[in-house]
Amino acid sequence: MPVNSTSSTDPFMLAAIAEAEAGLSEGGIPIGSVLVHQGRIIGRGHNRRIQQGSAILHGEMDALENAGRLPASVYTQSVLYTTLSPCAMCTGAILLYRIPQVIVGENLTFLGEEALLRNRGVKVDVLQNTRCIDLMKQFIRNHPALWNEDIGA
Amino acid sequence: MPVNSTSSTDPFMLAAIAEAEAGLSEGGIPIGSVLVHQGRIIGRGHNRRIQQGSAILHGEMDALENAGRLPASVYTQSVLYTTLSPCAMCTGAILLYRIPQVIVGENLTFLGEEALLRNRGVKVDVLQNTRCIDLMKQFIRNHPALWNEDIGA
Repeated sequence: MPVNSTSSTDPFMLAAIAEAEAGLSEGGIPIGSVLVHQGRIIGRGHNRRIQQGSAILHGEMDALENAGRLPASVYTQSVLYTTLSPCAMCTGAILLYRIPQVIVGENLTFLGEEALLRNRGVKVDVLQNTRCIDLMKQFIRNHPALWNEDIGA
Repeated sequence: MPVNSTSSTDPFMLAAIAEAEAGLSEGGIPIGSVLVHQGRIIGRGHNRRIQQGSAILHGEMDALENAGRLPASVYTQSVLYTTLSPCAMCTGAILLYRIPQVIVGENLTFLGEEALLRNRGVKVDVLQNTRCIDLMKQFIRNHPALWNEDIGA
């Protein structure tokens, strides 16, 4: 386990982890996300590549979709929690909607576009959460081809 | 009309425009896209914000979703056609899947993340197509609030 890994007691990261675990229990890729507006979860989601044959429903995208149509002002007052470092697509969605802060469960199994987010002024915090790391390590070990498909590799 | 605007006879751009017009006829935002693999359309889509209450189904995302789950090698041999310059989210999806070329109908009514695409090695051609420009100009004039919502503004 990495030196800086932690367990989380943040209820929003725990909600994102619960989404990742729900995805795993459906046979899916265990990545979850929640969109939090002024201290309240307004969208929850998890990766649905396997469950729905989806090329675009990553955890973050699913949370944004489930939050529904929202005015710009809601996004700019929100925080996105995700169990895994956001890929280029999810990063782009964060930039489109000008979500100012992203809390990332871990970036050890996959490092997304955190540098681009920070370059555009998004605050990115990475927890290196033990449960998030374990979920992805085990999934990638057991299903490397599925994981590669999800990240276009 | 801008000096360099053109009518298109490219069948793939015409297919993307047909998608935009289908969206308009449904009461939606008139942006369409097709994903072309080795000379064959493998995904078609159009913006579905209004029709499905979707925050993520831009034209390009809808085309990618409708193409279904694909191995990385298909995307890297494909060209994405879109009637409008790709926003940050759609740009991110193009980068995630390493689509090497994007043909853009126009970027006069909205300039997306073409610079980022080019910086990452994606070939971007902009047609300034007359029909694409007219579709967006009219929609933005008639529905400015809907359009702003779609681009997080």
